[in-house]
Amino acid sequence: MIFVTRKTHFNAAHRLHNPNRSDDWNSETYGKCNYPNWHGHNYIIEVTVAGSPDPETGYVIDLGDLKSIINEKVLEPCDHRNLNIDVPFLEGVIPTSENLVKAFYDQLKDEVEAAASEGSILYSVKLFETERNIAEYCPYITIG
Amino acid sequence: MIFVTRKTHFNAAHRLHNPNRSDDWNSETYGKCNYPNWHGHNYIIEVTVAGSPDPETGYVIDLGDLKSIINEKVLEPCDHRNLNIDVPFLEGVIPTSENLVKAFYDQLKDEVEAAASEGSILYSVKLFETERNIAEYCPYITIG
Amino acid sequence: MIFVTRKTHFNAAHRLHNPNRSDDWNSETYGKCNYPNWHGHNYIIEVTVAGSPDPETGYVIDLGDLKSIINEKVLEPCDHRNLNIDVPFLEGVIPTSENLVKAFYDQLKDEVEAAASEGSILYSVKLFETERNIAEYCPYITIG
Amino acid sequence: MIFVTRKTHFNAAHRLHNPNRSDDWNSETYGKCNYPNWHGHNYIIEVTVAGSPDPETGYVIDLGDLKSIINEKVLEPCDHRNLNIDVPFLEGVIPTSENLVKAFYDQLKDEVEAAASEGSILYSVKLFETERNIAEYCPYITIG
Amino acid sequence: MIFVTRKTHFNAAHRLHNPNRSDDWNSETYGKCNYPNWHGHNYIIEVTVAGSPDPETGYVIDLGDLKSIINEKVLEPCDHRNLNIDVPFLEGVIPTSENLVKAFYDQLKDEVEAAASEGSILYSVKLFETERNIAEYCPYITIG
Amino acid sequence: MIFVTRKTHFNAAHRLHNPNRSDDWNSETYGKCNYPNWHGHNYIIEVTVAGSPDPETGYVIDLGDLKSIINEKVLEPCDHRNLNIDVPFLEGVIPTSENLVKAFYDQLKDEVEAAASEGSILYSVKLFETERNIAEYCPYITIG
Repeated sequence: MIFVTRKTHFNAAHRLHNPNRSDDWNSETYGKCNYPNWHGHNYIIEVTVAGSPDPETGYVIDLGDLKSIINEKVLEPCDHRNLNIDVPFLEGVIPTSENLVKAFYDQLKDEVEAAASEGSILYSVKLFETERNIAEYCPYITIG
Repeated sequence: MIFVTRKTHFNAAHRLHNPNRSDDWNSETYGKCNYPNWHGHNYIIEVTVAGSPDPETGYVIDLGDLKSIINEKVLEPCDHRNLNIDVPFLEGVIPTSENLVKAFYDQLKDEVEAAASEGSILYSVKLFETERNIAEYCPYITIG
Repeated sequence: MIFVTRKTHFNAAHRLHNPNRSDDWNSETYGKCNYPNWHGHNYIIEVTVAGSPDPETGYVIDLGDLKSIINEKVLEPCDHRNLNIDVPFLEGVIPTSENLVKAFYDQLKDEVEAAASEGSILYSVKLFETERNIAEYCPYITIG
Repeated sequence: MIFVTRKTHFNAAHRLHNPNRSDDWNSETYGKCNYPNWHGHNYIIEVTVAGSPDPETGYVIDLGDLKSIINEKVLEPCDHRNLNIDVPFLEGVIPTSENLVKAFYDQLKDEVEAAASEGSILYSVKLFETERNIAEYCPYITIG
Repeated sequence: MIFVTRKTHFNAAHRLHNPNRSDDWNSETYGKCNYPNWHGHNYIIEVTVAGSPDPETGYVIDLGDLKSIINEKVLEPCDHRNLNIDVPFLEGVIPTSENLVKAFYDQLKDEVEAAASEGSILYSVKLFETERNIAEYCPYITIG
Repeated sequence: MIFVTRKTHFNAAHRLHNPNRSDDWNSETYGKCNYPNWHGHNYIIEVTVAGSPDPETGYVIDLGDLKSIINEKVLEPCDHRNLNIDVPFLEGVIPTSENLVKAFYDQLKDEVEAAASEGSILYSVKLFETERNIAEYCPYITIG
């Protein structure tokens, strides 16, 4: 099993706020991340595909193709945008890193697997909100 | 001459927009950076003080003191905030990196120089809007 | 399964030395790392929690809470300290990265899991002694 | 299970080209990576060993020994070399990152495991062709 | 004086060889860097412009424009190429970092200054051959 | 004027303490950095030489030679050592970054300038105590 990863980046504004709860609950739960006029991040995203290299090309996936798919499915809708307002596939999602990384995975899965070598899977999506705060979604790791 | 630098970070939302010009001019001039619902960055700030080490302490400035001054004068007003709306000392400033770095320098100068060794100066402030886009203000470099 | 990671840092002095063996054995086994007057590192620590986001908050764990727990349980006892002498929970431990990372995991497990969403686990602790020398303890990966 | 990783680097020239296919196929498949006069990279390699620390030394593997083995088996043959022409163990291998990382793993496995603590395994080899394009070979992760 | 910097990257093959000197001289002078079948690097380039922000835009130079000029004048001719063979503006230049950085500066100067605010200058070009080996050309710093 | 820089690293223990002042003064002045049993850092050092490339070699200085000089004059005495106790050329120096960087410059100047192209100078030495705390000594920058 070979894992290939493409790393890229975008920036966006967001705010953590659960509209089903009171302002006090939101302020207490999210602290600075709930400030009303938004803040933002330079997000870094790492997308990992697992599979066997195609014997003709030596590629699990052409990383140029992977870059194009990430651009189309994640960066074009999100880059320089407000994640609470502007992104159709994030409607109703509280934009924590945990929720974003799951939404990005779902956005990418079908196109990435269609472009990769036979039998390959989208293994994980990892998101650095800052270089200190990181979330990863990997449905293939099971515990216990 | 010894230069000491403290590096720290904050994140914020912003938007490039000159309210004295038309929406078309703004959209053409700033492109994605003019999108109406804000975007944001993990800003990295580097503050450099130049001087001679105090012979008793060996410090040009105690970097713990420098960290506290940057926190009070720049990070508390800016962190998790909207640079176009929330920051009193940026009122009327288009928040390009060039303009921010000059404003941060002016915020810091007096307190930093008061805390540093005799004769030291605030030499420069450098701001990484992303790791690829950087601005620095240094009034002591002259050309020609 | 979502994985969230908080990255932080501290610095400390240490020395590799097994008091049950001769000085010659120690010098031959550990080389420079056995020098008598200590050396030191800027350690980077990454703590990863695995679980499902709480549906109300969108958090597996509030990374501010995770930061506070790491501060209290690892950074306060270790930062700017001598790992061979000053840290009660490292008494009798040869401070190789392998041994440190296991000890840090044990320090953190209960409080981290109590602060995280229902069913979450402390998945791993990773320690960068330098950016080239790294150890990770993850009791959930089994082989063969 | 403790994982220890040594990170190091080399640089080399290469070109992606499958000699069993036409020039047109190669140009279309590999794009810029097929340019005839070579291009090159600063490769970063991370080698991870999994095992239990030896109770006498506290080491899964002495990272100085691991560094020496990587130097002898990978860096000496590859550093400042042309991966398509100069490296005996890469003869007949199209030097994609996927193929390189598998070849490096095979080069390293026996010597690394002989130098590590009882029962340890060479867990994975990871190769950064650039900081954005990454491949990893880990035969111990199974899916489904 | 404000300094704005754009950081970008390309990769290329090269070899250090002075065709006016003997093979022995070249081998002794350049060591591994003289190996006949080329090696290569992921080069990082930082281009710095100095000037005053345009009062209308707040820009010393639009960093999107600067990116386009670097792409056209340096990256398109050099990326995935052989610096000894493929690049017209490097004909006759031994591709040390010192020589490259001067050649890149000359390539960029006119177009960058035409795109920047009134009175701005191309201040410096910095090239990272690796993250450890760096060259910078800055004609405005004088010594003594 | 071309600037070439070599970046390297070492680690060491140290403690900030002025033996001519009381323990209370030291504790108040240096805080955690005064803890009695030492702490330590992974220091990164950047050495910059300024000059004109030799027309035969294209080098201001062979960076392999510069690496060897830094190894001999700074890393061998300091690496894995205690900067307050073990290093002859630091005797009587309080090991703040400001004082270290000046001492390293003095250690390096003569040998570096003898190895560099005609007329070159040792321009600066920069020391990262951590990635956030940095000192640089550059005797050629004058102010006012």
